[in-house]
Amino acid sequence: MPAPEAAVQYAKEHKNDFLEDLITLLRIPSVSTLPDHQGDMERAAAWISDRLKSMDFDNVRVMPTDRHPVVYGECLKAGKSAPTLLFYGHYDVQPADPLEEWKSDPFDPQIRGDDLFARGASDMKAQVVAHLSAAASMVHTSGLPINVKYMIEGEEEIGSPSLEKFIIANKDLLSCDICLNADCAILAPDTPSITYALRGLAYFEIRIQGPASDLHSGRFGGAIDNPALVLSELIAGMRDENGRITLPGFYDSVRDLSDDERAELSKLPTDDAWWQAQAGVKALHGERGYSAGERASARPTLDVNGLLSGFTGEGSKTVLPAKAMAKISMRLVSDQTPEQVHEGLIQYMKENAPPTITWEVEKLAGAPPAIVERDSVSIRAASKAFESVWGKRPLFTREGGTVPVVGMIQNLMGVDCLMMGFGLPDDNLHAPNEKQHLPNYYRGIETFIRFTHELAV
Amino acid sequence: MPAPEAAVQYAKEHKNDFLEDLITLLRIPSVSTLPDHQGDMERAAAWISDRLKSMDFDNVRVMPTDRHPVVYGECLKAGKSAPTLLFYGHYDVQPADPLEEWKSDPFDPQIRGDDLFARGASDMKAQVVAHLSAAASMVHTSGLPINVKYMIEGEEEIGSPSLEKFIIANKDLLSCDICLNADCAILAPDTPSITYALRGLAYFEIRIQGPASDLHSGRFGGAIDNPALVLSELIAGMRDENGRITLPGFYDSVRDLSDDERAELSKLPTDDAWWQAQAGVKALHGERGYSAGERASARPTLDVNGLLSGFTGEGSKTVLPAKAMAKISMRLVSDQTPEQVHEGLIQYMKENAPPTITWEVEKLAGAPPAIVERDSVSIRAASKAFESVWGKRPLFTREGGTVPVVGMIQNLMGVDCLMMGFGLPDDNLHAPNEKQHLPNYYRGIETFIRFTHELAV
Repeated sequence: MPAPEAAVQYAKEHKNDFLEDLITLLRIPSVSTLPDHQGDMERAAAWISDRLKSMDFDNVRVMPTDRHPVVYGECLKAGKSAPTLLFYGHYDVQPADPLEEWKSDPFDPQIRGDDLFARGASDMKAQVVAHLSAAASMVHTSGLPINVKYMIEGEEEIGSPSLEKFIIANKDLLSCDICLNADCAILAPDTPSITYALRGLAYFEIRIQGPASDLHSGRFGGAIDNPALVLSELIAGMRDENGRITLPGFYDSVRDLSDDERAELSKLPTDDAWWQAQAGVKALHGERGYSAGERASARPTLDVNGLLSGFTGEGSKTVLPAKAMAKISMRLVSDQTPEQVHEGLIQYMKENAPPTITWEVEKLAGAPPAIVERDSVSIRAASKAFESVWGKRPLFTREGGTVPVVGMIQNLMGVDCLMMGFGLPDDNLHAPNEKQHLPNYYRGIETFIRFTHELAV
Repeated sequence: MPAPEAAVQYAKEHKNDFLEDLITLLRIPSVSTLPDHQGDMERAAAWISDRLKSMDFDNVRVMPTDRHPVVYGECLKAGKSAPTLLFYGHYDVQPADPLEEWKSDPFDPQIRGDDLFARGASDMKAQVVAHLSAAASMVHTSGLPINVKYMIEGEEEIGSPSLEKFIIANKDLLSCDICLNADCAILAPDTPSITYALRGLAYFEIRIQGPASDLHSGRFGGAIDNPALVLSELIAGMRDENGRITLPGFYDSVRDLSDDERAELSKLPTDDAWWQAQAGVKALHGERGYSAGERASARPTLDVNGLLSGFTGEGSKTVLPAKAMAKISMRLVSDQTPEQVHEGLIQYMKENAPPTITWEVEKLAGAPPAIVERDSVSIRAASKAFESVWGKRPLFTREGGTVPVVGMIQNLMGVDCLMMGFGLPDDNLHAPNEKQHLPNYYRGIETFIRFTHELAV
């Protein structure tokens, strides 16, 4: 039996063990944001490091950070000529509340139908244990055909505050040829898919100050400018009648969508009618010349996330407000950077803010976009692995949201970060009754095995 | 001694009595908004009705409303050929807090220098008692040369909720040729002035609904429109680059400022530098072609009073908000009406709101503007009276704010409502250490006497 088949066979024979492993980890309520769960965080980290040790991984460590440790382990027995894969995952989970909306205890995993219900099932303990199970299946049969490192953090659900520092401090230890981030999903149980691009984020607060203090709109209205009106004008000027963002240089670094890529994206089962129904809107809107799906994933955007000025309670108050505030954010696509967009916004404000007000722009968050070329080694390997297991070619998708860790790893380590995981869109992430679809879990283990072997070719 | 001189002489001789009267009324804490002061409200109303009875006024009544009574009294002895003046005033006051900021007890009037400090001193017990004192001075000498009616309400500081109903129900009783509202001020102790116009108000809340619920800006941003951005665009479109309001028909009923009127207004000691300093702004702004003072009083405006959408707390939340809300209000000048402006706004929304959102406009408040022609009988009489007492011609001012009762009386009764009172701009209305400048009070009594006689000519 050729190498992957032996490991696949092993995985099938140990299906129940691998399910038990997942259930064991899910029983540990490793809620990173709640200080009461400090002990659970340590138990979850220990469980993973024990699992790595049981596979004879080397250099297995629970490495402290300012808050929750990172579990590291490596198996470099494939030798220097073989590629090295760094698996990124997280062992922490979201809080479970509101508890009363769960049909079963979030930390007492229960199988109903084909689904395993528990907090952290899909996000992302099933993905972590699936990969550990795939590794074990290879280790216990013909061995790992490539070098594998694990970096499994405990702070993803609180925004990965320690990760950047950790990666910088351990760059040599983590060095690799490719990173695999399993914190993701496929489109449907029978529709395998690969997310090859994520949007980045640049998030700002714009604060406008007009008069020194709130004034009476009867006494002063007309004599002086209105900061809320100025803010509205500035925001309105940020997009044109074609739905394009007018900030200087905004599109300069945007990679165009090729005809080939658009043809690929058009195969997705999410047409404009789907988007309209999902959002519950009367009509769609956006940059002219692109479908809703393209606009929501492969094109950059600008959204107002918040507005606040003056009197917002019930009834009327005739105030001419001193201040007005907007939170605006841009979703970025390769090769835009949060820094470029920040500069463009500042330039826009300098060119357009009237002399009647003062303004400041505060950068609140930023994360670069990420893309892995569809004809790269890792995507081709993933595609073949999916096709072997599912019997059909995966669809290629771009994600409109941002996974900061992906861009962070790409930028800090200079390697592609492949997204490959086996959740589903309806897994109730961060919500009551989170689940993992178990057929996906088992197929995921096999897909990880075949992917690993494809990388070795 | 000709008639007014006898009354003026009487007033001078009874100066101390009239001060005592004012102090007596100021000792009654007639705070209309606080239920605990119900008894004080009744005492204040009784004090005024007693005062009217002491002058042999007829038909003196404390007339109940849903909350606080209106004091009515009349002296129609001048006969049917003489004009009838209706004096409007209020006997209620604002609450006194914050008490710790008062230098003396707000309801234990204290004279410091030329000022009498007490809650309600300037707003408006001094104005009411000044007119009662003027009437008494005439009654006790040569008699009132015209017919006089008093309508003194107890709900002005809570928005006069009963007044419209009261006026409609008592239209015959209140019928008159001219109304005098003494709830106002002059520019400075040595600068008499007459406010001959007030702006009206139309106040709206605009609510925009985009998606059915808040959405994730990463997942949906770009595919659908953003209600806060749409709201910003709609607001931005409401004024043009010349600072003019673009709502359909907005300026159709606006009376132009004549050269003569502009020349008169330019005499006011409030130039653009004054407005800039008062507001504490870097630069003034408004409708092109008008001075700040004109824009703030004689031209209509549109202000954003409040904005609210999405996430407004600290930090960032990547929400694509479902809703956005703005409170906007227009200050109106004659002959605009709140109804016309409402229609214009609705038409604007119909023409400009995109099909991607739904919207609604709620009317929250409305009050018509008011103007008394500068060459009307009442203004000429007031002007002459001021000139006799102060030795100089009064300045003519327009007020940017709205006094709903003035427009209400003009509209319901079809008579001019003259603004004539003797407060000062720095009297700390509605604030700690409210005061009445006593030289104004004594001159005010004399001015009311002379004004009454001018009306009789």
